[in-house]
Amino acid sequence: MQLNVGLLGLGTVGSQVAERLLQKRDSLARRTGVVLNLRRVLVRDAERPRSIPSELITDAPDVVLNDPEIQVLVELMGGEEPARTYIERGLRAGKHVVTANKVVMAKHGPELLELAGEMDVDIYFEAAVGGGIPLISTFKVDLIANDIERIAAVINGTTNYMLGRMGADGLDYAAALLEAQAAGFAEEDPTADVAGFDAVYKLSILASIAFGARVHPDQVFREGIEGIDPLDFRYAKELGYEIKLLAYAARPNGKIEARVHPALVPVSHPLAQVEGAFNAVYIEGDLVGPVLLRGQGAGGRPTASAVVGDLLDLVFTIRKKAANRVLMTFDPDPPMLPMADVVTKAYYRLRAEDRTGVLAQVGRVFGEEDVSIASMIQKDSIEEGTAELVFTTHPARDAALARARERIAELEPIRRVGAFFRVI
Amino acid sequence: MQLNVGLLGLGTVGSQVAERLLQKRDSLARRTGVVLNLRRVLVRDAERPRSIPSELITDAPDVVLNDPEIQVLVELMGGEEPARTYIERGLRAGKHVVTANKVVMAKHGPELLELAGEMDVDIYFEAAVGGGIPLISTFKVDLIANDIERIAAVINGTTNYMLGRMGADGLDYAAALLEAQAAGFAEEDPTADVAGFDAVYKLSILASIAFGARVHPDQVFREGIEGIDPLDFRYAKELGYEIKLLAYAARPNGKIEARVHPALVPVSHPLAQVEGAFNAVYIEGDLVGPVLLRGQGAGGRPTASAVVGDLLDLVFTIRKKAANRVLMTFDPDPPMLPMADVVTKAYYRLRAEDRTGVLAQVGRVFGEEDVSIASMIQKDSIEEGTAELVFTTHPARDAALARARERIAELEPIRRVGAFFRVI
Repeated sequence: MQLNVGLLGLGTVGSQVAERLLQKRDSLARRTGVVLNLRRVLVRDAERPRSIPSELITDAPDVVLNDPEIQVLVELMGGEEPARTYIERGLRAGKHVVTANKVVMAKHGPELLELAGEMDVDIYFEAAVGGGIPLISTFKVDLIANDIERIAAVINGTTNYMLGRMGADGLDYAAALLEAQAAGFAEEDPTADVAGFDAVYKLSILASIAFGARVHPDQVFREGIEGIDPLDFRYAKELGYEIKLLAYAARPNGKIEARVHPALVPVSHPLAQVEGAFNAVYIEGDLVGPVLLRGQGAGGRPTASAVVGDLLDLVFTIRKKAANRVLMTFDPDPPMLPMADVVTKAYYRLRAEDRTGVLAQVGRVFGEEDVSIASMIQKDSIEEGTAELVFTTHPARDAALARARERIAELEPIRRVGAFFRVI
Repeated sequence: MQLNVGLLGLGTVGSQVAERLLQKRDSLARRTGVVLNLRRVLVRDAERPRSIPSELITDAPDVVLNDPEIQVLVELMGGEEPARTYIERGLRAGKHVVTANKVVMAKHGPELLELAGEMDVDIYFEAAVGGGIPLISTFKVDLIANDIERIAAVINGTTNYMLGRMGADGLDYAAALLEAQAAGFAEEDPTADVAGFDAVYKLSILASIAFGARVHPDQVFREGIEGIDPLDFRYAKELGYEIKLLAYAARPNGKIEARVHPALVPVSHPLAQVEGAFNAVYIEGDLVGPVLLRGQGAGGRPTASAVVGDLLDLVFTIRKKAANRVLMTFDPDPPMLPMADVVTKAYYRLRAEDRTGVLAQVGRVFGEEDVSIASMIQKDSIEEGTAELVFTTHPARDAALARARERIAELEPIRRVGAFFRVI
């Protein structure tokens, strides 16, 4: 049996996928009973010299999308359009799809899965989240017997690398960003990573599958890491925490909570030990308890591992004519927990006039907002005549934490609230 | 559609599986499109009162095995026989099988998988290794595009708990064992765990799937943790290591290396941070790079998570008439690397007369055996007139490490070789 594959996009991931399909053709055929034949590769510039045989290359989308011999499209272009349209055209033409596209799957996944069901084909997207770490399959199949209680993840390598450099080596935000750009971890326009959008897309995909409910990226609370002060890494360390860009989803009392923001993570928590460009996802299921999955969350080879893994799983499925074998259903409009109602611990850093009565005033505000203090550090500040106060709190409603923050900022002896983080 | 399930064994795992099937019958049916009907439960003593409806209970194996209405057998009895025979009878009768039985799968897995193929049914065994951690599915499908280079794992919770108590709290081996037995982590006869058999079974299953080659438990090198001296935890810590019961498999130069033994693991290695009864498997694939999977490796609920997950995956498969969808092939007789040829680092602790020239003599033996020293600690010993010498080495052939150990023990000023560990 032979299966013809059309590849859309030949960037870092696409090149690795093409290489594996071409170089391991025989051994993959032995393992799956099916010859995977790379038939067409869509690129932007067909003239550029490449290692792929030139007769496979085209810059005309229709040559791939309209080829009736192609049974599987592998979409590795990235971005919302035209990728979404191409995927939809492929599905409507009865082609199976493997994609690594987190934007498309986060925004349009449930509709595309439904369309695939109608057309009796499959859409696979393991590579859309966490590179080669088996996340989608874990939620889709392995943990299906569980009610998933909680997902806590570090799923953006760029920000994790930057925060690591700031925490370990005292770089400021701008220097960490420049370094990440030089190392190829951050884009020229780093917004998608540093403002948290990338993590939001990934979390919305994971939460949708974990909870069987459509969690749209717009419904995920988002704060980025822009402008984090190196000072807070020192206080965090003193208190026993690392600072991470946390992606968190849970289902307290039947409502879905989904949020991406910098957070203090206890050093003993497995997510605190995730270094550099690595990703890790911590899952709690009612039967399985806590499970941690960790690996390289991006990059050509790890992502190609997921793409080719999907492709081979699809081969098994096609061989048995078992498309849409694993059912996925999504509550189209699940109740969401607004950020104001989220219950979380927090960290405040204040700069205050160095005089008596300040603590009493701050303490009164916390008390009136029903926020209970867990720990406090007071230090001389570099600003003459001021002191730095760092508080951590016990769990409280996010709205109360925000109000306390505003009211404290207005207290007469408070120069400013220098930082506010949530604490996991 | 309805699927009738026969359950063999109602211990901690079986009870959890039965409970989930009975209590979540409706929600599982909604998610899978299939009603899972628990039809029969085989127990040893049918008279004992239980929470399961008594009409389901039987102590006659044939009542379950010969019931033509039962399409799936869930084998949770444990042990080699009669479990293996029952599984074989089930497969021959055209029933699918889900099992948590590591002994049967390690010793007979490839034959049973082949038989299942002939009968066009499936045998699932995710629960046989690592409780609810998705390991089998990860190797079987997710990482299938990879050449697996290496597996390093902590997959026996009992020994990990004991080693943790010895390392952190200075308990000796006997006290740690008593405590593990009291906590329910160790059996009355702890041999299967402390002598490494349990880890060997699990590693042989993982290595077989990872390498597509039959690795029989008898081919796995095995050393247990019996008699480990608390002293070595202190030296290990000083050198920057934890002591773990390591399960390791690799494929250097096409030969399979598979071994279970206590080992020094650098504190920075993800396996060093696996605490208590947790399991973790560290995998390196040529595309995906390093991946770590961690969770509760045993216990009723985590194991039930894997069993019911398998059962639901099987439901999807049966619904689509796609048995034997995922191919697994095993080289029946792969070349194995003998332990003597394994290349590893090592740790030696010697007690020596406290006089000049000892170091030179020990150093000469290491040199003659082509073992290069990486670090050395010398301390006064509690024995009058003696010193304790601790060496770690660079990588060397295991045979050379063993010969060095023997020759050093025979040196005149050496009272004894107090400990020898391999180092990852």
